[in-house]
Amino acid sequence: MPSSTLPERTIWLAKDGWSVEILDQTRLPQSVEIVGLRTVSEVAAAILHMQVRGAPLIGVTAAYGMAIAMHGDASDNSIAAAYQELIRTRPTAVNLRWALDRMVAVLMPASTDRRRILAYSTAAEIAEADVATNHAIGVHGLKVIRKIMAARKSSGPLQVMTHCNAGRLATVEWGTATAPIYLAHRAGIPVHVWVSETRPRNQGASLTAWELVQAGVPLTVIADNSAGHLIQRGMVDMVIVGADRVTACGDAANKVGTYLKALAAGAHKVPFYVAFPESTIDWGIRDGITEIPIEQRASTEVTELRGISLVPPGVTARNDAFDVTPAKWITGLITEKGVCRASEAGLSRLFGRGTA
Amino acid sequence: MPSSTLPERTIWLAKDGWSVEILDQTRLPQSVEIVGLRTVSEVAAAILHMQVRGAPLIGVTAAYGMAIAMHGDASDNSIAAAYQELIRTRPTAVNLRWALDRMVAVLMPASTDRRRILAYSTAAEIAEADVATNHAIGVHGLKVIRKIMAARKSSGPLQVMTHCNAGRLATVEWGTATAPIYLAHRAGIPVHVWVSETRPRNQGASLTAWELVQAGVPLTVIADNSAGHLIQRGMVDMVIVGADRVTACGDAANKVGTYLKALAAGAHKVPFYVAFPESTIDWGIRDGITEIPIEQRASTEVTELRGISLVPPGVTARNDAFDVTPAKWITGLITEKGVCRASEAGLSRLFGRGTA
Repeated sequence: MPSSTLPERTIWLAKDGWSVEILDQTRLPQSVEIVGLRTVSEVAAAILHMQVRGAPLIGVTAAYGMAIAMHGDASDNSIAAAYQELIRTRPTAVNLRWALDRMVAVLMPASTDRRRILAYSTAAEIAEADVATNHAIGVHGLKVIRKIMAARKSSGPLQVMTHCNAGRLATVEWGTATAPIYLAHRAGIPVHVWVSETRPRNQGASLTAWELVQAGVPLTVIADNSAGHLIQRGMVDMVIVGADRVTACGDAANKVGTYLKALAAGAHKVPFYVAFPESTIDWGIRDGITEIPIEQRASTEVTELRGISLVPPGVTARNDAFDVTPAKWITGLITEKGVCRASEAGLSRLFGRGTA
Repeated sequence: MPSSTLPERTIWLAKDGWSVEILDQTRLPQSVEIVGLRTVSEVAAAILHMQVRGAPLIGVTAAYGMAIAMHGDASDNSIAAAYQELIRTRPTAVNLRWALDRMVAVLMPASTDRRRILAYSTAAEIAEADVATNHAIGVHGLKVIRKIMAARKSSGPLQVMTHCNAGRLATVEWGTATAPIYLAHRAGIPVHVWVSETRPRNQGASLTAWELVQAGVPLTVIADNSAGHLIQRGMVDMVIVGADRVTACGDAANKVGTYLKALAAGAHKVPFYVAFPESTIDWGIRDGITEIPIEQRASTEVTELRGISLVPPGVTARNDAFDVTPAKWITGLITEKGVCRASEAGLSRLFGRGTA
């Protein structure tokens, strides 16, 4: 999907066969820089400082972090230490825990001399599964796009609004929210994307805009504040976002500001979809507002931009990184298994889980 | 209200008795700089480039612009030329037209030799009236604050959210949305203000934060995206914003992003108030969405920050400067005449205008 001079994926095994390389997302869109990760601490730091970010990609990166740990020391203590160091990097995205739990479940029963190869093959499986999963999300999302295209009264390109980056940069390839957009674009459906800049870290303006340009999809950046105005004026046909954690009842935690877009879409009957893989579902919780921890990040992410202070001396900011959109504001959930209503019944049926 | 080393007002007559001086708001919060305006073109440029901004202050500045025109040439042609140059600077705020119409109504019937002195006295009257009006808005708004304080179940300071700058920097003194906050603070009511940074021009982070610091009112800056989350979590007792134009039916145009806050407040039954003087009301229109022109500003206000590009090369932004909050989302209107419902009946009764 990206141009041939750029890395096709966001994470890959280095030529040495054991360390990993990532596209440093804190440097985009100014420059395309590749960073090598050779220790668990470097992997943890890359997640913490958001050189890699996006719930699915965080999971894959953490899996490779465990593999790197096994490369150095395949003991039980090494598994436990790597788990502890990696799990604490980001509290909201559940894919991180999901990937680490899967690694531990594979590694613990194995003998220490088999753990290294098992770790790398499992991390690679998780990465490959992410690519296949996102493509499947795209296929199901494309059906939603075709329905909305057929039902709308306006002409011109389909106007899709998104928030933050739930794109290929948030995954290994394709993205979650962007996979349907990319498949629509490839299918010749004219699409234009309203890219919300996504303060305070500007992942929309810097990352989503960058990857849409790479893919040749037309886009316009907007200040986050403009979302309500554009939706009110009938300039948005659908909103599609990703998620960092979805409860068994369909509440979705995603980048802060998502909830405001859901409220605006709801007020104007614009379809609001959330796209994510099964690994984003936290089956153990039901109420997103009381049960999903919301990461608080540094005040300076809001008050400073590349070293420039945006506020008077002494002023600080509160910086909640995520918000929760209750299921009632969500038109539908797009997953690799299909599309369902944002409800316990919808999710249970799709993923073949009986409700207790 | 400001510290004694700073100018007390945002605009004043210079010592020469005919030119005016302003606090350059594009330089805040980094530095406090005073700029002299000596021609109509300089006044128009100061409004256009937002060295002065805020609907009431734009009106006062334009009035002084007309006075400066009369200082140089008191002919009918000079009145017409100044009117044309000033009226086209900002299309959304109705106070601009209101102030210029008032100047023309005073000047045209007068003989040319009386126009100069009449122009300066009328501009001064408009400025003094602005101070008195905003203080009256504060007195009426303080009653609203006392009611909300008495009715709420939570303890601690009253949590007020605002957007953009409808503060003393948007007026000659006191501000519209801030006047009730300043009077509450003076009355010993503990108040904490959530200051939404207000992208793309950051008037919240730079201007509102600055003037609240000057006045000693506790505040925390937030990314605009956080508003829904804080309101959802019960961390906001009331929202109070200003307006650039209010229709006869109570629809309010204000800085883009206001509508999203109104939707969030509405979804969680948090009181949402709009504070403004009578000069902000456009009695000639009823439907804010179809009848209020929305200023479109430069893409670079979104895509660049102090010369730094925030987007990939070739990417542009759409930059609507305002949005319209329909009356149904507004709990009440706070004016110099009192508080009323956001409706034709409410406004008509308050301002003694019969409905046709």
